[in-house]
Amino acid sequence: MNITPGGVCAPKGFTANGIHCGIRKNKTKRDLSLIFSQTQANAACVYTTNLVKGAPLIVTKAHLADGKAQAIVCNSGNANTCNADGIEIAENMSQLTAQALKISPADVVVASTGVIGEPLDLTPIAQKLPELAEGLGGHSDLAAEGIMTTDTVKKEVAVQFCVDGVTCTIGGIAKGSGMIHPNMATMLVFLTTDCAISSQMLQKALSTDVQSSFNMVSVDGDTSTNDMVTILANGMAGNPEITAEGPAFQAFMQALNTVTVYLCRAIAGDGEGATKLIECRVSGAAQEQTAKIVAKSIICSSLTKAAMFGADANWGRVLCAIGYSGADVDVGKVSVAFSSKAGAVAVCENGSGIGFSEELAKQVLLEKEIEILVDLGSGTAAATAWGCDLTYDYVKINGDYRT
Amino acid sequence: MNITPGGVCAPKGFTANGIHCGIRKNKTKRDLSLIFSQTQANAACVYTTNLVKGAPLIVTKAHLADGKAQAIVCNSGNANTCNADGIEIAENMSQLTAQALKISPADVVVASTGVIGEPLDLTPIAQKLPELAEGLGGHSDLAAEGIMTTDTVKKEVAVQFCVDGVTCTIGGIAKGSGMIHPNMATMLVFLTTDCAISSQMLQKALSTDVQSSFNMVSVDGDTSTNDMVTILANGMAGNPEITAEGPAFQAFMQALNTVTVYLCRAIAGDGEGATKLIECRVSGAAQEQTAKIVAKSIICSSLTKAAMFGADANWGRVLCAIGYSGADVDVGKVSVAFSSKAGAVAVCENGSGIGFSEELAKQVLLEKEIEILVDLGSGTAAATAWGCDLTYDYVKINGDYRT
Repeated sequence: MNITPGGVCAPKGFTANGIHCGIRKNKTKRDLSLIFSQTQANAACVYTTNLVKGAPLIVTKAHLADGKAQAIVCNSGNANTCNADGIEIAENMSQLTAQALKISPADVVVASTGVIGEPLDLTPIAQKLPELAEGLGGHSDLAAEGIMTTDTVKKEVAVQFCVDGVTCTIGGIAKGSGMIHPNMATMLVFLTTDCAISSQMLQKALSTDVQSSFNMVSVDGDTSTNDMVTILANGMAGNPEITAEGPAFQAFMQALNTVTVYLCRAIAGDGEGATKLIECRVSGAAQEQTAKIVAKSIICSSLTKAAMFGADANWGRVLCAIGYSGADVDVGKVSVAFSSKAGAVAVCENGSGIGFSEELAKQVLLEKEIEILVDLGSGTAAATAWGCDLTYDYVKINGDYRT
Repeated sequence: MNITPGGVCAPKGFTANGIHCGIRKNKTKRDLSLIFSQTQANAACVYTTNLVKGAPLIVTKAHLADGKAQAIVCNSGNANTCNADGIEIAENMSQLTAQALKISPADVVVASTGVIGEPLDLTPIAQKLPELAEGLGGHSDLAAEGIMTTDTVKKEVAVQFCVDGVTCTIGGIAKGSGMIHPNMATMLVFLTTDCAISSQMLQKALSTDVQSSFNMVSVDGDTSTNDMVTILANGMAGNPEITAEGPAFQAFMQALNTVTVYLCRAIAGDGEGATKLIECRVSGAAQEQTAKIVAKSIICSSLTKAAMFGADANWGRVLCAIGYSGADVDVGKVSVAFSSKAGAVAVCENGSGIGFSEELAKQVLLEKEIEILVDLGSGTAAATAWGCDLTYDYVKINGDYRT
């Protein structure tokens, strides 16, 4: 498996573009993105579990009922959520996209990200969609820019892998300001692949993968109304279509997970205001679910996150987050260590503190990528979660987001 | 019912004191507090649900097994939690207190608050306990100071009420840096009353009350290992002992709730780094539990808290927090308004935004006490939760707590 350039345009038959259409006032910020497959593709999607769902999600879900799609359109700057006429607007946005691409509106995945509860004016989108479509090409980077909100870096990746002797590619772009659920503005992930795989197996792969990838990321614990992860598979690599489990499906799953974990780390590391990526690896659990609950509880603890910002080895907060996680844990068996490029330092064994060098701990925690290693001492199951530190800038960014 | 001065010393037969003994380096900060009842009192207590429990809680629980206590001792600066010999230390601290007061160690409630995982040295406590005991008097304020950690104001209150024609008093002090679970360092609440009430009814009153008082406060969602709410009732008011439900028990419950809600608001408003007290009142719920879940979800939302800090009427974040709360809510029926001394402004009806004056909303949200009013439009049940805004100073305080 190789990392390869090109993002969502790395797989055969996919083009993309991103422009400034005028939803945002800042003319230097792209706010409309398009991803297009040369042929109709199998499609799968997972959506936010928030009861408040953005109108674009409801429309997309209807469009994907047949497991087929050919294009993804997404604006930033406005979430088109909690508006009385949101569904009509999302339908019209699909119509406009379909017209520009000469495809069926039912083959359009539509997404929006930004402020909730303000009507989305389609005028700038209608005006600029033809230009956006005409400019389609190998512009994964522009599409990645067009979906950014408070993101500070664009997020794209692609990997090549082999199915039945045929080289296939999965590419992806993502937005997410360092949380799963940033700014009410959502995490969005758009994936493309030229691997031939049935809609059913594609959905199975995606639904399985998110359990250990995007569902294990948190910046602030706020589950967005517009979260969406979509994948289009156009089959243009020419491999025999994957229609059941087996080695080919496993290879696909592995490649997919490489892409999604890369994007998870990119999202967490670019958390709003974040200065550090925190990876929490929990091992020694009796069950995988226990490990997941514990890992997410630690990643979500404001106190732990603030301690990481301060490079303070305050492991008591880690133990506290384990204790209130709701998981069935024998706290007397828990060990905790911090690790980074600068080294590793054990701080707690069997639920009690052990002597450690504060100087070394400081060195470890001053790095930009920190691992919190927890051994529950009760089994062999493990899980990993990703998050970031809690900083002054998080408060600054979110104190007055709408202006 | 009247608010009355005197805190925990307002009820008859209770004295208190607080001194600097030397656990903290800062000699101007009191770090050891004592509350004493002239006679053995009935006692009740509720404890943190965190699986990691501070050693003092375990010892206190054993001491209160008979429903009796006569003194409360508490240090700040060290939580005596996650130490291999913590229970022995807490037992010895009870012994030292009992010796100084000439009572049984089994009648001592022991509590500690501060950093986790660092051994608690009893030497300064042993040296200063006699002085602390000799100085017992009407010093509720000094006791309230002695239990503070990152609190910026001491928290005490007392109310007078009438039981069977007899005037009774409940007093209380609390620490909590604006969260239920500040700094791994705990929320602690010590209540005293001269009302005669059986241990069993006292526990029933306290266990019932916390469901709508302290369990509805949050600053950062981190449940402390050392949370504890204790009440001592010495019966010195001379009323006929309350041994069953009825008007007298109701009067007691009402007075207790007045004290606890006062302390809840004091704790939330003094949240770490907080500039505002946020009270979230949810009405129109089909069930009380639904209203509670929704109110707490809003109070706990980092994005909502940051918006309140910025005086930004970003109601979409409130709706989002309702949506992911896990409660069974028809989001299409939800209304939201913001209210304060400066006025009230409705921002959302039937799940969609409505036109409102941003200028008025800003005025409303610039106040120091904000109400978020949510009507779920589905019934008559209601609940209230208390929290605070998320600020730069929260991050500052928690970025390097141990130094």
